[in-house]
Amino acid sequence: MTEMRGRAAQGQRTREAILKTAVDVASTEGLEGLTIGRLAAELEMSKSGLFAHFGSKEELQLATIGAAREIFVDEVVRPAFENDAGLPRLWALLDSWLQYAEAGIFKGGCFFAAASAEFDGRPGPVRDLVASTMREWLGALERGVAEAQTAGHVEATADAAQIAFELNSITMGANWAFQLYRDRDVFDRARTAMAARLAAVATPAARRILPDSGAAKGR
Amino acid sequence: MTEMRGRAAQGQRTREAILKTAVDVASTEGLEGLTIGRLAAELEMSKSGLFAHFGSKEELQLATIGAAREIFVDEVVRPAFENDAGLPRLWALLDSWLQYAEAGIFKGGCFFAAASAEFDGRPGPVRDLVASTMREWLGALERGVAEAQTAGHVEATADAAQIAFELNSITMGANWAFQLYRDRDVFDRARTAMAARLAAVATPAARRILPDSGAAKGR
Repeated sequence: MTEMRGRAAQGQRTREAILKTAVDVASTEGLEGLTIGRLAAELEMSKSGLFAHFGSKEELQLATIGAAREIFVDEVVRPAFENDAGLPRLWALLDSWLQYAEAGIFKGGCFFAAASAEFDGRPGPVRDLVASTMREWLGALERGVAEAQTAGHVEATADAAQIAFELNSITMGANWAFQLYRDRDVFDRARTAMAARLAAVATPAARRILPDSGAAKGR
Repeated sequence: MTEMRGRAAQGQRTREAILKTAVDVASTEGLEGLTIGRLAAELEMSKSGLFAHFGSKEELQLATIGAAREIFVDEVVRPAFENDAGLPRLWALLDSWLQYAEAGIFKGGCFFAAASAEFDGRPGPVRDLVASTMREWLGALERGVAEAQTAGHVEATADAAQIAFELNSITMGANWAFQLYRDRDVFDRARTAMAARLAAVATPAARRILPDSGAAKGR
């Protein structure tokens, strides 16, 4: 029993190590670049050893997206939830996103922006998983705005879905510019844009939750 | 002489027909999917016939980016320049971008957003051409804001580069959402966001140039 459990645990560790490398390969070379052969070479494993963990390229792609989602939740979402619901939590979510993008948690920039661009025109389970994972993120932003409305931090008349669309657009624009031009100033631009967008709908007392720059800069 | 000119003209027409197909293939399958073999099959031409026009895959990729740029200029930039310099021209530029994205001028959505995501991690001439072409677009947006300042349509204190970054981010966010979810509402969201962003820095008299929705919606 103990030996079997030991083997299962080792199998799990191997699987995790494979997925860690797979996430890095996919973030720079795309999910299509994630062939069993390419990954076996990178990990110095046999192809058949890899096949024991993932029966097909598609299964490997789906598991890699799941692993990237876990990393994103650990790096961006979970830390934000240590803050009070409302504008503090929403701002923390945006701030951790900016830190995640600037720190280069994924070698090729935001994993999900890249995966979206790669798979948006290719129907199938990979595209569906990318789309549903991104819906979770958009949902988290929209819920963040709605909670800020409930907490009295954001005007009740504000359109939470519209604001979530705009905040997500700013993350897309910042990730795009940083990946293409390696110019770190885009994170200041993005922070300024996010703070100004929220300052425009924040109740007067709640504006102090946002960084100072927000209301003044870029206007 | 006439015959030679006729042949040169026919060669040019063939080249243009090849590039038209290449743009479509690249916009859905990526610039890496643009192999001489793949394109020869699509066009029912011989590989050697294609090689006569483009000596290598990279040359084909570069020519395809150039052809996509021409289409973008014809569809988005040129029509906007029929409007007066200042907010009318800037708004026309954004409005034609939205129409271009919604009409699906490129099968796979915005050609340059896709090409950026595909090549931002791959140094070389293809990446450089994508980056410089996108700089032209960002430059056009920034110049549009600056001209609107000169015309007295936008407050002189506004940060043109910041606004250009934000307007471009909205195009990125809209293209992403439409490609992944096929939800046409994102174009209304994008239009609302762009109009509101510009209304916030427009001089009082110039606000009438923007669509009504801008100042009110999403706030």
